[in-house]
Amino acid sequence: MEDRRTEHITLHKISSGTIHETEDKVAVEEPLQIELEYSTASGRMQKNIAVTMRTPGNDEELAAGFLFTEGVIKNGEAISEIKRPHADENIVQVILKEDIIPALGNAARNFYTTSSCGVCGKASIDAINTVSVFTAEKDSVQINAAVLYNLQYKIKEQQKVFEDTGGIHASALFDCNGNFMMLREDVGRHNALDKIIGAALMNHELPLNNCLLFLSGRASFELVQKAVMAGIKVIVAVGAPSSLAVEMAKENDITLIGFLRNERFNIYSGKERIVL
Amino acid sequence: MEDRRTEHITLHKISSGTIHETEDKVAVEEPLQIELEYSTASGRMQKNIAVTMRTPGNDEELAAGFLFTEGVIKNGEAISEIKRPHADENIVQVILKEDIIPALGNAARNFYTTSSCGVCGKASIDAINTVSVFTAEKDSVQINAAVLYNLQYKIKEQQKVFEDTGGIHASALFDCNGNFMMLREDVGRHNALDKIIGAALMNHELPLNNCLLFLSGRASFELVQKAVMAGIKVIVAVGAPSSLAVEMAKENDITLIGFLRNERFNIYSGKERIVL
Repeated sequence: MEDRRTEHITLHKISSGTIHETEDKVAVEEPLQIELEYSTASGRMQKNIAVTMRTPGNDEELAAGFLFTEGVIKNGEAISEIKRPHADENIVQVILKEDIIPALGNAARNFYTTSSCGVCGKASIDAINTVSVFTAEKDSVQINAAVLYNLQYKIKEQQKVFEDTGGIHASALFDCNGNFMMLREDVGRHNALDKIIGAALMNHELPLNNCLLFLSGRASFELVQKAVMAGIKVIVAVGAPSSLAVEMAKENDITLIGFLRNERFNIYSGKERIVL
Repeated sequence: MEDRRTEHITLHKISSGTIHETEDKVAVEEPLQIELEYSTASGRMQKNIAVTMRTPGNDEELAAGFLFTEGVIKNGEAISEIKRPHADENIVQVILKEDIIPALGNAARNFYTTSSCGVCGKASIDAINTVSVFTAEKDSVQINAAVLYNLQYKIKEQQKVFEDTGGIHASALFDCNGNFMMLREDVGRHNALDKIIGAALMNHELPLNNCLLFLSGRASFELVQKAVMAGIKVIVAVGAPSSLAVEMAKENDITLIGFLRNERFNIYSGKERIVL
């Protein structure tokens, strides 16, 4: 399959008053429709669960990760098959096993208020804690600060689409010694993370409680929430965290690091896992 | 009212192997629930339309802007009142006038597939063109490149929350001569833009077809789409555009500029409005 992650375009570059026409690459952004097939009392049913604006590639991982981090399915065993029902490359269909009842109300969490959706941050955090299957897991993760200093250089070797376009987010997994495991890139940072978690789900590698998650940008509530769902214990972001990201990390005993730059970083939560 | 946009937290800073505890500010991220009150055949009705993770402040603008850019209301005159129905600072209620029928199907556009939601990018673009009330407007906007070179310095003077936290997006409006008009900051870049457009909506300043929109980050489909809804003709982003952002800009005759840095920028669409 051709690489649909970048696209050539013609543009004009202006530099100190001069203009010239040139070619360059941009990151592809296209909608992915996620369809779900599942059992009900009255037989099998198909439903469009979500449309997300994403960079094509690893769409099956994205669909699986989305369903898992949004609490619609509890594990990878719930999935019978993921396929493309039509010739359209922007639709994936996730077929659940006969005996699986998806928690469809959960998928509405981020978008619309339902009876189960709290409004204040605290209530949202409580809601997600209830849903996560891994939050109670204990760990003895220890990560040397020097491991963190080196992450940015290791990431640069891997971020091909970013290098080409300058316009894409990355999520990556490393083991506790800083060995590279996996990287996914996407115009949507939540998609990049869902692809990582979806890949781990399909490879029966969850919970991810013995590795660290690297985020190329800022740490928001949504990203920490998805990490909690996957049992991740250490999040390292290049950018700033939000107030709710910090709160969420603290409540779930997650080590949250931000502003990673050269030999500097900030620890917002869970400093006992970092060894100087 | 106190400034709820930033929050003091205690953290640990690591620098070349040393650690010290300190205080810093983070950008506040909290959910805002947008409730809508409107008329139906069987009387007045209240409905929760959306929950968005936002930085508190200008919540009324955000609610109004969201309803407008998502196509739920057609103009500011549709709104009778925006109030906070409860003591909770994270709920706003938008009360529509008696004779207004909101287009509630449109609000689902980004989230769930409805019969009107296309899946390929082209279909999504067509869908939004149909909804926008301003796309047919003609303009004779001309902007000097030197005006663009100076935007970054002017923005720095205005971005107070970013300065404090390093973790927030900004949208800003300037007139065609580069005079500053308005800036809004938010952890969600779509929220920052909705606040700008909501403010313009409430001040009867739409369409915004004689000014330029500055975006502190990348240009995505969603942001260009919202700009189209507000009749904006020139978008200047510090970061990269996505493929669909470029396509959307071209189809709607919008000047789209990216990678603005010092005296350099790229023009992806609509170069006839830029004067060297």
